[in-house]
Amino acid sequence: MSITELQAFISQFKNELEKRLPAFLEKLECPDTLKEAMLYSVNAGGKRVRPLLMLAAVQSYRNVEESDYAVACAVEMVHTYSLIHDDLPSMDDDDYRRGKPTNHKVFGEAFAVLAGDALLTKAFEVISSLKELESHNKILLIRELAKSAGAEGMVGGQAADLEGEGKDLSLEQLEYIHHHKTGDLLSFSVVAGGILGEAPDNDMDYIRGFARELGLVFQIKDDILDIEGDSIEMGKAAGSDECREKSTYPRLLTLDGAKEKLITHADNAKEYLRSVSGNPLLLEDFIHYITERTK
Amino acid sequence: MSITELQAFISQFKNELEKRLPAFLEKLECPDTLKEAMLYSVNAGGKRVRPLLMLAAVQSYRNVEESDYAVACAVEMVHTYSLIHDDLPSMDDDDYRRGKPTNHKVFGEAFAVLAGDALLTKAFEVISSLKELESHNKILLIRELAKSAGAEGMVGGQAADLEGEGKDLSLEQLEYIHHHKTGDLLSFSVVAGGILGEAPDNDMDYIRGFARELGLVFQIKDDILDIEGDSIEMGKAAGSDECREKSTYPRLLTLDGAKEKLITHADNAKEYLRSVSGNPLLLEDFIHYITERTK
Repeated sequence: MSITELQAFISQFKNELEKRLPAFLEKLECPDTLKEAMLYSVNAGGKRVRPLLMLAAVQSYRNVEESDYAVACAVEMVHTYSLIHDDLPSMDDDDYRRGKPTNHKVFGEAFAVLAGDALLTKAFEVISSLKELESHNKILLIRELAKSAGAEGMVGGQAADLEGEGKDLSLEQLEYIHHHKTGDLLSFSVVAGGILGEAPDNDMDYIRGFARELGLVFQIKDDILDIEGDSIEMGKAAGSDECREKSTYPRLLTLDGAKEKLITHADNAKEYLRSVSGNPLLLEDFIHYITERTK
Repeated sequence: MSITELQAFISQFKNELEKRLPAFLEKLECPDTLKEAMLYSVNAGGKRVRPLLMLAAVQSYRNVEESDYAVACAVEMVHTYSLIHDDLPSMDDDDYRRGKPTNHKVFGEAFAVLAGDALLTKAFEVISSLKELESHNKILLIRELAKSAGAEGMVGGQAADLEGEGKDLSLEQLEYIHHHKTGDLLSFSVVAGGILGEAPDNDMDYIRGFARELGLVFQIKDDILDIEGDSIEMGKAAGSDECREKSTYPRLLTLDGAKEKLITHADNAKEYLRSVSGNPLLLEDFIHYITERTK
């Protein structure tokens, strides 16, 4: 397996995901504006890293099946809800996301809040409604998702990030924010792939370790790209964290220090994969893909 | 059973609920402000109609057990999240709720959004983590909750309500809003009580019918109280819907017409209960309790 093969996997499965994701929402019987607001953000593109990671984790144990897509779509709904709420004027106050006006710029704040609420709720409905999965596994997925997305996970990370704005954070505080704000939902994605692929219990700890390290790699790379990246490719202004006086890895560790840390965590992630009993070649390639991405 | 006995049930179980509800949140490991914001609204009082209805529905089949409280707390978390988000400046823009400053007035808009998000997510975690319940029943509860709370339920109702502000609505549109905005989560509460109490399948349709009618009774009474109620007892200004030019039952049907409609739906609710095989005396008393409440 090589980066080229991973890219083939990504473009095939991204396409499959992007066909199914809006289909869950189009059939909703609800006020039109609400549905449009949900679809707008779900269809706004993006790398689809979380659902693709989930499918790559499944693929370490068996071929991807139809029900896997549903869980992958659910995690993308949760990610999309978090972006809509994070972009609100009272939060990060972003006007653009992926080069397009943010949800509240198009539908107003009230509908942006509601579209986010509805996407989060829909994710739990999608998983609980899956016919192909045993109740026991559905409950495992729902519990993991709720923990990863809630006060002790993603929402907690966003709260800590807001509190930290304009302050000088320690490396420990910065890692807390990233572990939760970005890392927990990435971890869920990989762990969910393990649950769906019925990974042996022994594997699950390694999968969690891999996911945690990969989450850090993802975030450090994000901070580096914020300095070095191309605004057009990234869909947001390079240096925007700098403007907002946000604590970042390059700020705390210098740019070279951040790059070194990126390599350390990428190596740790690879190390965890060595202990996995399945065939996690795609996951390994994901490490390179994330380390070397330019947007 | 009489209203007095129902009141004894309510004060006993309300107390038990209000001990357990904050306990789920106090042990969260998350940023302090987020936890305080969640606790503030959860501890802000209220009638606790939804969890009490759930326990009354359980009591129609067997005595209340510890795990029932957890599901009852979960529905109160979802209700509390919806109040926090509905009160936001971009939504109903309310400064007071139950006589206290609303969440965003105390913690700011960003934390109000996040506290709501975290409460919604926690509700799903609480149900999925219940050890005493079989996975199959947990999945039933989660699916019902997600449907009732999401785009086709409560969030859809709030969206329709926002769109309808300042417009003359038909009775059909007003009923759509109330069925979803208030009715669906009330219905969930009763249905969840039936699931927890392992009501026979035959009963579930009658329970749903009862819950739907009771939701309408609740909302019509709310509209009547908005005109006739005592501001201090209600914790918000009487006539506030009138000021905001909201469509209400008295506006569409006259005050007498609304009172007549209240009686019709209360009778329908009673009729459904007659077909239930359990012993739904508390549920029957709930109809009187809601019809005759003064706040």
